[in-house]
Amino acid sequence: MPASRYAHAVAEHDGQDAPTGDGRSTPPALARQEQDDARGTLDALRASIDNLDAAIIHLLAERFKCTQKVGALKARHGMPASDPAREARQIERLHRLARDADLDPVFAERFLNFVIDEVIRHHRAIAERHEGPADGD
Amino acid sequence: MPASRYAHAVAEHDGQDAPTGDGRSTPPALARQEQDDARGTLDALRASIDNLDAAIIHLLAERFKCTQKVGALKARHGMPASDPAREARQIERLHRLARDADLDPVFAERFLNFVIDEVIRHHRAIAERHEGPADGD
Repeated sequence: MPASRYAHAVAEHDGQDAPTGDGRSTPPALARQEQDDARGTLDALRASIDNLDAAIIHLLAERFKCTQKVGALKARHGMPASDPAREARQIERLHRLARDADLDPVFAERFLNFVIDEVIRHHRAIAERHEGPADGD
Repeated sequence: MPASRYAHAVAEHDGQDAPTGDGRSTPPALARQEQDDARGTLDALRASIDNLDAAIIHLLAERFKCTQKVGALKARHGMPASDPAREARQIERLHRLARDADLDPVFAERFLNFVIDEVIRHHRAIAERHEGPADGD
């Protein structure tokens, strides 16, 4: 994790006469209660994020099992290394899925490219063993 | 998709007297059958990859809903922009989950950093509206 990620950190204030986001002041007890509520909400959101990350990691593991099989299959059968039409269909589909799920389609495409880059690394390793092709399925 | 991704593509051979991976030749009919089987296996693997991608995209959409709430919450309550201890725990946990799922732990960490970079972009946009912090929860 680069140190620059933390460069913009701000000191946690102590909750006494805490200014609210809109610049008004609140009494200390109310400010403390609000901070406690916010902390509880933050913890709950983080627990959901952790659950989603665990699910995503396991799905990615399964995806790599598939792409490793694809890599081995292509290497064994001398199948073409890449399939631009397949990649174009994947991107178009992810754009559509992302829009339906209220996710930025550009992010969905960046995500696919990120994963494909990793798959290409895997396939190159397989191809070096088989002297076969490397692609990004 | 960068053009270089396709630069290593190889021409698809026609399956006649197809050389196998180990250099032996097979009769044309058998080679054709093997290619058809391989194609069927490839299509099945790609269908699974597409299903997994759809699941991952939907989980990512849900994750961003959570981090957008985190960003708004932190901006509203003047909570600290970043939490290095939280990020360290996330990374350690993803490493453990990745190992359990037979996924490269280094990839899992790269994945988290990739997603966090996107979250930081989102939070900066929220922070600009609230003049609050931007972080990568």
